[in-house]
Formats: sequence, structure tokens, C-alpha cells
Amino acid sequence: MASSPELVAVVMAGGAGTRFWPLSRRRRPKQLLPFAEGRSLLSAAVERLLPLVPPSQVVVVTGAGLAEAVRTDLPLIPPQNVLAEPTGRDTAACIGWVAWRLAASLPNAVMLVVPADHVIPDGIALRQALAAAADVACRYDALVTLGLAPTGPEPGFGYLELGEGGEAVGELTAHPVRRFVEKPDRVRAAQLLATGRWRWNSGMFAWRVRTIVAAIREHLPELAVALDRLVADAASVGEAAALAVHYPGLPRTSIDFGVMEKARSVWAVPVSFAWSDVGSWSGLAAVLPVHAAGAVVGDVVALECERSVLVSEGPLLAAVRVSDMVVVATSDAVLVLPRSEAQRVKEVVERLAADGRNDLL
Amino acid sequence: MASSPELVAVVMAGGAGTRFWPLSRRRRPKQLLPFAEGRSLLSAAVERLLPLVPPSQVVVVTGAGLAEAVRTDLPLIPPQNVLAEPTGRDTAACIGWVAWRLAASLPNAVMLVVPADHVIPDGIALRQALAAAADVACRYDALVTLGLAPTGPEPGFGYLELGEGGEAVGELTAHPVRRFVEKPDRVRAAQLLATGRWRWNSGMFAWRVRTIVAAIREHLPELAVALDRLVADAASVGEAAALAVHYPGLPRTSIDFGVMEKARSVWAVPVSFAWSDVGSWSGLAAVLPVHAAGAVVGDVVALECERSVLVSEGPLLAAVRVSDMVVVATSDAVLVLPRSEAQRVKEVVERLAADGRNDLL
Repeated sequence: MASSPELVAVVMAGGAGTRFWPLSRRRRPKQLLPFAEGRSLLSAAVERLLPLVPPSQVVVVTGAGLAEAVRTDLPLIPPQNVLAEPTGRDTAACIGWVAWRLAASLPNAVMLVVPADHVIPDGIALRQALAAAADVACRYDALVTLGLAPTGPEPGFGYLELGEGGEAVGELTAHPVRRFVEKPDRVRAAQLLATGRWRWNSGMFAWRVRTIVAAIREHLPELAVALDRLVADAASVGEAAALAVHYPGLPRTSIDFGVMEKARSVWAVPVSFAWSDVGSWSGLAAVLPVHAAGAVVGDVVALECERSVLVSEGPLLAAVRVSDMVVVATSDAVLVLPRSEAQRVKEVVERLAADGRNDLL
Repeated sequence: MASSPELVAVVMAGGAGTRFWPLSRRRRPKQLLPFAEGRSLLSAAVERLLPLVPPSQVVVVTGAGLAEAVRTDLPLIPPQNVLAEPTGRDTAACIGWVAWRLAASLPNAVMLVVPADHVIPDGIALRQALAAAADVACRYDALVTLGLAPTGPEPGFGYLELGEGGEAVGELTAHPVRRFVEKPDRVRAAQLLATGRWRWNSGMFAWRVRTIVAAIREHLPELAVALDRLVADAASVGEAAALAVHYPGLPRTSIDFGVMEKARSVWAVPVSFAWSDVGSWSGLAAVLPVHAAGAVVGDVVALECERSVLVSEGPLLAAVRVSDMVVVATSDAVLVLPRSEAQRVKEVVERLAADGRNDLL
């Protein structure tokens, strides 16, 4: 194993997120919610990285409206390391922007890209996997993703097939990725899982700065040209002004679809640690401490409740004989629905938006 | 029919009421809740009487802590007509106190006693029945109660059996009461109803002042002696001081158990108008305007809800696919339970009291 590469962690903390309304709001999306034992998911995500990457090497990318809240949430991270997108342009633009910023000074550094809103209880296993991914990224000049062990044929995720020819990296084994399948239906997902060769694409990546820059130049040339202009203008008019001009027009695509699915040297490090993207109120039960009533947060009196998500941020929430429900109370809004319908909170948010209830969004 | 007797309406508006928590609080019991088309039950109860009794002849008895709120709620009623009990001592003491106050000046007036927290949509029918009851009260020197048409074998109510020998009063027919049964179990209640002779005791009464005073002297002599002392002291030290000394020690019993069940000349006027005592959150659905989702009050977004009681006083309440539930939201407390368990709100209130959460009670 060669000497360890320099690491830069990039924590992607954009995204509005309506799935946790009424706790999540435009100014307070999921990653800032206190779902990690009272701390935010973002702060837990950063803390998981710190033993591997020093705070000065952690970059957090978020929306302009959230930058101050993110800086407050992350006192250990230098404020200038919190980068603000004027508007969200999906992951290829976000990752490209950071890579372009680093390209001049740290072309050989390895970027570890992680989302801010996942729950991963075993930080040691995560860091071990990221270190292995960084190793593979350097060894094969590769784009590397962590391949999560699927827990079921979830239709909402991206899937990747591990190719033959595993390579040992520490205690793990890396595989070339044979192909990707985005969001298969449940039947197709079950077929994939039956082969034992498919993993969930985690959205956690490792690559050298110059590798991802070259891959974007090859597969997303329009984005590369726009980023060239952005960086050039930033040197003359300042980054904020350059961002305001160039960022909103960046091509909008995901790094998976725009780059990973097309690039040649793409590897995956299969991992088996517990993971959740906490995709909905219903999913929260899986990541919170177990309570007789289900998942319980805040000032809650629950009498004979079961399998429910009972969350209050403010009012006392009293529930009697509530089963398989989600109840979330804040000082200005209350949500009640069955756990099986948790994703329909989006309809509530849409209805409020249509009604002009911006104070509640 | 003799010339109309002078009428005094006595509206009993005491009672704490925990069954409508979190809307009802110690300082804001059920009778002050806006369940009568946006107005309070109390104000609707008084308004139903006014065409029969002038405001100057309406007396409202409530708890000391509620007197100001009651006066504010009833701008038509002279403030001095709102009487404040230092503490609740059940209906015999309350009715006795008012009767003793009236005995010197209006011994032949008829007291019409009504609770403040019932829903009776047909005010004309109520007034017709009360006028008939007043007529019977004078004609037979009787204690008269309105006998409601039972809608089912409810175990929580008092039942009365109509005796033979009905007497026409206007368009109605009065009957001597043969006997009372308090809160039978459901099986016994069904047996009573099967005979067709039993009615619910409404808690709405008519009697001359001197008749009820004499009945209390006969059947509750200890109460009568205490009221004698209270009235005598009031003349010397003032009513407030006299109340503070004597009222808390008055014997605690209901007018039904203490007087009606023992007195000789007890009549009932059977009535058939719609009536509800709005006994629980679940019962609210029967008295509110019909909505696809059930009973809906306040800032509520209900998607595909049914047979539910959805009430907000403050926060937006959003419910999706909620069936047969009660959800009540205020700025500091939220209640969720199945409609079939609505009476268990008492357990929540008890728990909060045990936990010293007085701010929520």
C-alpha cells in the first residue's frame, strides 16, 4: 500500500427536503434535524469523518439560505469551508464545483464525498471503508463508490453490479463495477438481489481531484466549460459574484447518471455496516432508540401506543392507544398520518404551497 | 291555564371538565368552548332562554375562577347576575343557594334551571317545554324535570319512569314521575327503554322558589340550615365574606339524589327535541356541521380523512388518511387518540396532574 493520500472530505448538505415536514422547513431541511441522538444528522455525519480527516480539510456544501445555520451547527469546521450554492443544481455540479476549486492546489488529493443526511451508527466501519475507497481511487485512478448491503428490494435506490476480480484493500475487497441500474421497480430489484452481485449505490464516493475533473471533462463537457468560466471569473470578480452569474446555469444532472454510469474505471467497495437514509417519518423508527410506543422524541406522553412515530418540538404531545401512526407536533403545525402513508406528507406540503401558506413551509 | 308565573332562569355553569382537554383547561371548561357555531356553549344556552326570560332575570352560577370569563362571554347579562361559587359543591348546594337568595323577594317565581353545556338546536321546542314545566310546577306545586327521549341505552345518564295519568300542558303532556334510576349498566338501561316508559333525566328543571326551598328543608335539612346561616351572614358581612365562610362546607350532593328522588310531587315533561350533552370529543361529531372528514374545527387540512374529530386552535393541523380518530391541537398541547377511546383523555389529564404539569391543566 502506497503512502496515504491527502484527504478532503466533501459533505453534501444541500437539499430542501419536505419529507420531514412540519419539522423540516425550507430554512431547516432534514440534515439539520436533531435525529442523531439530539444532534443534527449533519453534525453526526461530520463527526464520523473527523478521526479520518482534520476539520480544516472538511468542506460542506449547502444552499445559500442554509449556510449560516450550517456554520452554527458545525462549530469545529472553519466557516470558510462551508460553501453556499446560490441554487441547487444536483450532485454533478456540486461535486464539480468543489473539484474545480481544489484542482489548482490539491490535484492529487482524494475527495471523500458523503451526504449529510444519512444515519450510520458504526463510524469506525465507515472510516475503514472510506480509507479503502481512497486507496482504490489512487491505485486504479478510479471513481470509487461504497456499495451498501441491500436490506430489501427497495425501488427508490440506485443499484450497482459487482464485477469479477475482487482486490483486497485492508480488510475489505474492492470490485470493478459492471453496471448501474437506477431505481428499478420492486420486481426488478428483487431479481437483481437474487443474484447476490448487486449492491445499493450509497452516494458515498472517493476519487482523486484530478480523476473526477478529467471524468467531468470527458462526460459532462458543458459542465466543465461552465466551471472553467466560474473559476476564472472568481479569480477576478470574487467567488460570490462568479457563483451568482454562473452557478444557476450549470447543467443539472446527478454524478451517478452524468459520470459514474459512463466512466471506465469505476470501482465499488462493498460494505456491510448498518445504514439508513432516513427517507421518511416512518423510517425514523429504525434509527431512533427503541421505545415501547415506537420512535418517541420530545415532550410526549404515550399511553398504550405502539409502532408509532411520536415527535414533538414544542407542544406536549399526548397520545392514547395510537398504533402505526406518525404524529409530529411543532408550535405552528401538526401532522398526523398512518406510518404506511408517511410519504404523503409531500401532498400536505404541496397543498400548503398552493394555498400560499409560506409561513409554514 | 293561570296567568304566567314570573320566571327566573338559573344557568348552571360550574364544572371543570377535563373531557375536552387540551381545549378545555381549568380556566376554560367545556361550557366556554366555541362548540356552538363558533360561540360558547354557555352563550348559546343563555341565548336560547332569552325570548322566554329577560336578561335581567337570568342568573348564571359558575366557579369563582371563571366569573370574569363568564361575564365577558355574556355581555347581555347584568354582571351582578353572574354568581361565583367559591368552590363547587354539586347541584343541590348551587340550586339551594340561588333559591335562598330569591326566597325573600320572589317566593312565587318559577326557577328554570338549565345546564350551560348542552347542545339543543331547537330553541323554540326547549322554550315551549320549559314554559310547560313552569306551568306544571305552579299547578301542582311540583318539582318538574324535562324527560329527554333516549337515543340508546347510555349507561352514564339518569333515567326516570313516567307514571300513569298524563296531564296536557299546551301541546305537551306532563306525567308524575314514578321513580328514578341513576346510571344503570347498559343491560339494565336497555331493559328500561324496552318498556317505553323511561326517559333520560335532563338536568333541566322547573319549580317555584318556595317549593324547592321547602323540599330542601325537608330532604336536605343540613343544607337548609347552612344556607340559612349563609343568607343571614350575607346580610351583615356581605355575600362574598359569607360565601367564603359557609359555601365550602355545604353538603355535597346532587339535586337529583338529594331531593328529586325523595320528594313527593315530582313531574316530568317528556320532550322529543334533539339534545346532546357533548360528553366527549367523540360526541362532538354529532353536534358540529358535517364535513367529509368528520367534525372539523379551525385551521385543518384533511386529506382523505373520515369519521374523525379534527380540531385546531392555533397550529395548522394536517391529517392524511386518518379514520375514526380524535386529534386536537393547541399551541401548547396536542391530543391524539381513537374516537372509541375518547373518554381516556381523563387519563392524560391525570398523568399531567401527577407530573405537576399545571401549565397544561
